[in-house]
Amino acid sequence: MMKEAEDIWELVTFDSRGLVPAVAQDVDTGEVLMLAYMNRESLRQTLETRKVTYWSRSRQELWVKGATSGHFQHLEELRVDCDGDAILVRVRQIGPACHTGARTCFFRAADASGRLSPIRTSDQER
Amino acid sequence: MMKEAEDIWELVTFDSRGLVPAVAQDVDTGEVLMLAYMNRESLRQTLETRKVTYWSRSRQELWVKGATSGHFQHLEELRVDCDGDAILVRVRQIGPACHTGARTCFFRAADASGRLSPIRTSDQER
Repeated sequence: MMKEAEDIWELVTFDSRGLVPAVAQDVDTGEVLMLAYMNRESLRQTLETRKVTYWSRSRQELWVKGATSGHFQHLEELRVDCDGDAILVRVRQIGPACHTGARTCFFRAADASGRLSPIRTSDQER
Repeated sequence: MMKEAEDIWELVTFDSRGLVPAVAQDVDTGEVLMLAYMNRESLRQTLETRKVTYWSRSRQELWVKGATSGHFQHLEELRVDCDGDAILVRVRQIGPACHTGARTCFFRAADASGRLSPIRTSDQER
């Protein structure tokens, strides 16, 4: 059911680890760049600083995307889904989003049997 | 680290519940529609049938999106991220993606303090 929330803090559900998945989308191209996780503090910090900040599950610490690489995500708009269990950050991405150097983390596609190959990047996505 | 996988089944990591998050994106408009979860069988079925199929965490069953509502998601392309812990399905969405009747589940945006308001839908996204 849709919750009638006026405030993101009433709506968002953090899971048993205190996390909610967050999808980053390039606001200019529409390209989906990555999926990571936010805790309450990283969400608050993202809204306040306008630099997208995740929770690093491997390092167990706040992760200002780009703090070491320079590849910041400047927040243009932060959306929440109907049930409050997912976040969408619409960003201006500086440099590549992926640690591999690819523009997006989603750079491989599967055929019907599951075989992977590089995506064909459309003009819209460049 | 990027895994050198040739096959999605080598690459994808299912969590302790056997699930991986899957983001649905409208292939025509670029709009991010929803986030849900897939288990191994729903991923296999999605690739094979080209109708996006999730795992319903609330009902604990396979969930062919649109099976009851008619609002199917026809798979155009299925991507996997660098680390294999997220899926992106690029779809042709029949009708609204959201059970509220909204085109996308991400229909509310938060300001710096967290206050929610309806998104302004761009022409590109209509």
